[in-house]
Amino acid sequence: MSSSSWDRFSSLSTHINIEELTRLTAAFTPSDQVNDTAVLRLVASSRSKGYDAISIPLTTEKWRARWRGMCILSGEGGERDVGAEERAEAWRAAPVFMRDEVTITRLDETEGVTAMISDWLELDSEDHWVRHDSEIALQQELAYACYLNITSVVLPSPQNRAHVVSYARAVNECIKATPYVRFSVKIPIYNPSIFHPREPSSPTRAGTPRIEIQDDPMLSPGGASKPPPPCAPEGELNATWEMWDIVRSVCDYNSRLTLTLDLTPPLPLNLGVLSKWAAEPVQHIFLPASTFIANTKGYPVLPKGTQSFIRDSMTHRPTIILSGVGAGVHARGGEAAYAQYVRHLEKSSPAVQASMKAGTVENFANGYQDYLQAPLQPLMDNLQSLTYQTFEQDPVKYQNYEEAIFRALSEWPASDRIVICVAGAGRGPLVTRCLSAITRSRREAFIYAVEKNPNAYVTLQGRQKAEWKDTVELVFGDMRLVDVPEKADILVTELLGSFGDNELSPECLDGASRFLKPDGISIPSSYTAHLAPISSSKLYNEARSGKDEKSLETPYVVMFQAINLLSGNSGGLGERCGPQVQECWEFEHPRKDAVLNAQGLPPTNSHNARSAKLAFHIPHAGVLHGLAGYFEAVLYGNVGLSIHPDRKDRVSKDMLSWFPLFFPFKAPLYLPSNSELQVSIWRLTNKRQVWYEWYAESFMPVFNTPHDNPIADEPESILSTHESFFASSPTHMATPSPLVDAIDAQQARDKREKRNTWASVDSFKKVELGVVKIGQTSLHNAGGKSSWIGL
Amino acid sequence: MSSSSWDRFSSLSTHINIEELTRLTAAFTPSDQVNDTAVLRLVASSRSKGYDAISIPLTTEKWRARWRGMCILSGEGGERDVGAEERAEAWRAAPVFMRDEVTITRLDETEGVTAMISDWLELDSEDHWVRHDSEIALQQELAYACYLNITSVVLPSPQNRAHVVSYARAVNECIKATPYVRFSVKIPIYNPSIFHPREPSSPTRAGTPRIEIQDDPMLSPGGASKPPPPCAPEGELNATWEMWDIVRSVCDYNSRLTLTLDLTPPLPLNLGVLSKWAAEPVQHIFLPASTFIANTKGYPVLPKGTQSFIRDSMTHRPTIILSGVGAGVHARGGEAAYAQYVRHLEKSSPAVQASMKAGTVENFANGYQDYLQAPLQPLMDNLQSLTYQTFEQDPVKYQNYEEAIFRALSEWPASDRIVICVAGAGRGPLVTRCLSAITRSRREAFIYAVEKNPNAYVTLQGRQKAEWKDTVELVFGDMRLVDVPEKADILVTELLGSFGDNELSPECLDGASRFLKPDGISIPSSYTAHLAPISSSKLYNEARSGKDEKSLETPYVVMFQAINLLSGNSGGLGERCGPQVQECWEFEHPRKDAVLNAQGLPPTNSHNARSAKLAFHIPHAGVLHGLAGYFEAVLYGNVGLSIHPDRKDRVSKDMLSWFPLFFPFKAPLYLPSNSELQVSIWRLTNKRQVWYEWYAESFMPVFNTPHDNPIADEPESILSTHESFFASSPTHMATPSPLVDAIDAQQARDKREKRNTWASVDSFKKVELGVVKIGQTSLHNAGGKSSWIGL
Repeated sequence: MSSSSWDRFSSLSTHINIEELTRLTAAFTPSDQVNDTAVLRLVASSRSKGYDAISIPLTTEKWRARWRGMCILSGEGGERDVGAEERAEAWRAAPVFMRDEVTITRLDETEGVTAMISDWLELDSEDHWVRHDSEIALQQELAYACYLNITSVVLPSPQNRAHVVSYARAVNECIKATPYVRFSVKIPIYNPSIFHPREPSSPTRAGTPRIEIQDDPMLSPGGASKPPPPCAPEGELNATWEMWDIVRSVCDYNSRLTLTLDLTPPLPLNLGVLSKWAAEPVQHIFLPASTFIANTKGYPVLPKGTQSFIRDSMTHRPTIILSGVGAGVHARGGEAAYAQYVRHLEKSSPAVQASMKAGTVENFANGYQDYLQAPLQPLMDNLQSLTYQTFEQDPVKYQNYEEAIFRALSEWPASDRIVICVAGAGRGPLVTRCLSAITRSRREAFIYAVEKNPNAYVTLQGRQKAEWKDTVELVFGDMRLVDVPEKADILVTELLGSFGDNELSPECLDGASRFLKPDGISIPSSYTAHLAPISSSKLYNEARSGKDEKSLETPYVVMFQAINLLSGNSGGLGERCGPQVQECWEFEHPRKDAVLNAQGLPPTNSHNARSAKLAFHIPHAGVLHGLAGYFEAVLYGNVGLSIHPDRKDRVSKDMLSWFPLFFPFKAPLYLPSNSELQVSIWRLTNKRQVWYEWYAESFMPVFNTPHDNPIADEPESILSTHESFFASSPTHMATPSPLVDAIDAQQARDKREKRNTWASVDSFKKVELGVVKIGQTSLHNAGGKSSWIGL
Repeated sequence: MSSSSWDRFSSLSTHINIEELTRLTAAFTPSDQVNDTAVLRLVASSRSKGYDAISIPLTTEKWRARWRGMCILSGEGGERDVGAEERAEAWRAAPVFMRDEVTITRLDETEGVTAMISDWLELDSEDHWVRHDSEIALQQELAYACYLNITSVVLPSPQNRAHVVSYARAVNECIKATPYVRFSVKIPIYNPSIFHPREPSSPTRAGTPRIEIQDDPMLSPGGASKPPPPCAPEGELNATWEMWDIVRSVCDYNSRLTLTLDLTPPLPLNLGVLSKWAAEPVQHIFLPASTFIANTKGYPVLPKGTQSFIRDSMTHRPTIILSGVGAGVHARGGEAAYAQYVRHLEKSSPAVQASMKAGTVENFANGYQDYLQAPLQPLMDNLQSLTYQTFEQDPVKYQNYEEAIFRALSEWPASDRIVICVAGAGRGPLVTRCLSAITRSRREAFIYAVEKNPNAYVTLQGRQKAEWKDTVELVFGDMRLVDVPEKADILVTELLGSFGDNELSPECLDGASRFLKPDGISIPSSYTAHLAPISSSKLYNEARSGKDEKSLETPYVVMFQAINLLSGNSGGLGERCGPQVQECWEFEHPRKDAVLNAQGLPPTNSHNARSAKLAFHIPHAGVLHGLAGYFEAVLYGNVGLSIHPDRKDRVSKDMLSWFPLFFPFKAPLYLPSNSELQVSIWRLTNKRQVWYEWYAESFMPVFNTPHDNPIADEPESILSTHESFFASSPTHMATPSPLVDAIDAQQARDKREKRNTWASVDSFKKVELGVVKIGQTSLHNAGGKSSWIGL
């Protein structure tokens, strides 16, 4: 890391390709100094231009030619080349480079250098021998890189979906064999070849690496060319990500394996399918000069889609690898213009700006992004003064509390004496807010402040004597057990957790409700818990790296950053799914129709058990790693608190006190595009404990065609329902332009579906749409079970 | 277990339902003896009738009535019943039975008794409170059963697919809380309600438990009645198994959780979908008298489908629970006729007969079924004499070797002196066979016998001196290193493992080929490895119970019994998949066009690396637990050895030497009906080691309708391809009769597909059939990697 990057989100690197490097080396005239080589000069010059790092290929064209001569040409044409076979066997037995087959040879040349592994290696070739020899060559390059103390390498992109598992297996083998090297898989952000007809497969294996995605690898194993599909189906938009998913799954989410996202294909605006990359460990973003377009003045700028993708990516602090910037692709600005433009994107990134601005959650959370924290257990543990102080700094939460109390007081007749009880007063912030609300509302009111934390109770005594005097009476003890001198009209508490009830607010309020008058009110009056399915390789890795085996059975408090919400809002085929974020359950206070014993307490905690079953539509393929948990509370009337992603800014903007909850799954679950995810979650309770359990199943919608439904009474009727089905989408789409329209298909479809929602639903029903189960993840007993004692 | 069952495959149990039990108890007049109760008399009477066990319900109608009064009726009608609510809360706080609410009260009444948990509990009710209170009632019954030392309970059948996860969660909780009790989930073998219109949902919760399967649980969460589907789609045939799969998955394959398969619905013949139960831990088979039909004489017999299912199930040694056999359902034979009939099925079971008959693999393998053995590593370990002796007993293997040697010799001119080399002679069985073949073929031949096991070499010396004399010369040493006095015409080896090459035959033969003449022949001349995907909860549990974490990364030798081959032969939609069992790779000896060094050895082992990618069609939903590995070898000409399931009886019937190989997967993978499974497997090698790795991905075929393919250039063209697609299945099926035709739909379809294969394939291509990935299991480095040293 360069010292100048301390206040920056991204690092900049420059990529020197093999042609440039060859030219530089050829033109190199050694000086008298010992420490002078072409590579050293190149590194020094890149540093002086402000780059933090440099990436160069590790091998030369000479090596490529020798390898091809041994390993590929000998197998072509049918005639046997015994000499080549013998040379290949000798190489396999003892792989060695000649001096002119590698670009770097000295330890001092490798500082700040990322080595690009030969991009012509085909670890996923259709040909068994090419795969085999590519793997030996990869091991040879890595062994050489290790020798030179190179710790960061970029692997060539996988290219063949049918054999990407072989690529993944070879990479996994290398990761295990070379413990100190970080590996980054270069992969295009999507497969651009899906937008134009495929060229017939080249007879040589040379040329620019291109992703070959076959609809069905089994159908044409020889790689025979097929006519291209007429447009870009969802599956092919996901294809490069799917290859990445296989590589990292086979490598068991090794933390030394990252992504180099290749932005060579220009991006359209707002392509939902790309948001999945936010949940992946993108270490480098590869950005060639050719991706830049010229603005009206001739300076290099990026297309709008790429701009916005890079702006959004800045929070992940990537290294941007600029490639070919010295080649003069653009008329104006020279080499420096590319780096300046990237720095401009960084500064104008909304996420970066939010992070820099005081008072935002992003700024408050700096350093805590994607960091797993155990939820507070204030009922079991007595909080520290510092913890109280942190939460008291929230400008929004207590303001909303005061407003809620004010509105509640305002509805009382002005003549009444109103009794307020603050249960769980802590260091007293709510008492202060009550006093302000009493003053503002010009009501006569008296406050009891109950607190069970003996340490905080000392602070309360000080404030009572110094500030509050005889308007407040302190009561020491647990709100579930203590007696309060008189019953209250208003009970004010702040017992909510990130998931609403997860800090046992319902159980505490069961006890505190004893000293609420029958028509008294509770602030908060209700709260709801909400869930959404998320993908995040980082959170999955963090959760499973926990020390004990329960680490994947515990919910965590997390400020989300490198995550992707997998669910969509569209409802899916047949509109059977709920929205992106869905409500699980609600608690209301005071309880209605409660059965209570002589002490005014519920005989059991059964009424606080909850369960929910939710159905989410998954528009784009992704891997489920866990559930994001949110809460929303009604304090009083229309005043509330919310961390629900879609509602927080309208209910309690810039509130800092709660990060969301993360419920991890033990095993990642692959979810295909257009699948349905059914999530079950329970809030369970017994005599001593409260805990959550959660579970997920995935489904694919299927049409009950004759294939699913082999005996149809009247085959004709199926045909006719299909006709009616197609007839229900009368909107004739214009022939799409080659790039943007096709790629925004999902969006266009969403719009169309909105217009035709009701017609579509009816016809969907007619075609007997069903679902088949395709997978599940294991059930989790929350680790909280053993620690949430206290009932 | 009764002492009379030692030579039997099944146990017999009788089920007394609550009406019978109530009648018996009412009619009971206590004798003077202390140890005399209605239950004790019932148990004694069942024993005397030859039953090994008895199953009775644990609770009475009184308990059911009280529970309903508290927990259900209070919630109905809308009017609040505070008294019932208070009673329910008191019960939840301290669950207790009254004396007349349970059937058993004494320790001595529970010997040999399986307790049936109240079958009216609805752990998967649509109603949250019914689920909640059913769980407390279940815990109460189990606590009571524990008190009485009952160690085997049968749980009521899950009934509601939408909430079966709640059922599973509750059962999991109970299993963990009661460590010594075995739980068995009663579940119908398939859901018979799919064959007749559903009745409108009953207003009361009482009545016979019935499986309610909704096409989409989210669509009608209130359980509103819908018109039935016109026939029985595959998904619904799988529905009860799918519920079982969720229960055992949530319970993490706990070995105390088994199945009680309810055969109340009569079974059709040859229903492929039922074979999946063979891979499940079926402890009891529940067989009511009502399932029996009367034969022409009036005696109870079973329908053909049920007969054949029970015959096939006998090898799993189930307990058959006969129910209602005392009620006189059939005119002739009385109660004893049912048990006699089951014993008759047992005796006439082909599997039982094979197991009893000497010389069969089934008989040879008695006691080894589903037992995981580490494969032999004869190259690394020197085998014991006892091991040699076991394998020398195989009547078929050595006979086929002799025949192959005989045929090879017969093709030589009678005048030639032929040199035979037996490499890896062991204790000499192949030497003896060579001598027989020489005699039979009337050829002049000399035998070199090479052996590296110093202990076996002592035996060889004895035999040479006593039997073989100067026709055989012994050579001590490793065939890869040793020198043999002259080059051989015929090289005979027996180095094959269950997967062909897994005992390093290719590597050993590379060495032995040094002393084979250029035109010499090898016996075996080639061998192939074959794979099929299998389900087996038992093997999965066995493999993961291994001590070290590598236990799921090692292939095992297993005599398969409780397994189900998941693949089908049909090729799937579009005929893109291979057959049920597929070939991975082949080895040929001697090698053609080999590159060799001066010592006649290959410079590297690269030529023995292999890889395969196979696509299997999965006709019926199942859970993938591993791969079955088989081999087939050509010894010479048309003489071979095979353990390939479809071919072994034609190639080498009754050969005993090899059980198949089992490659386990770390995590089970759910495979939906009509999905495709792609399996990758590699045989890998480096300078010192040889090992396998394996991986699987599952896919669902999808039609590229406008939903997958949102922007179609011409929507009309999609419609027209669909038309041509449907037009390609012109066979008009007759309206099915209610039971057998509908249930044999899969079969009927298979037949139809065969007739129309070519037409279908063409039209499939036209409709752009694609696949989407839906899941994967992790990659395995075989544990063999570290132990197969020796290259």
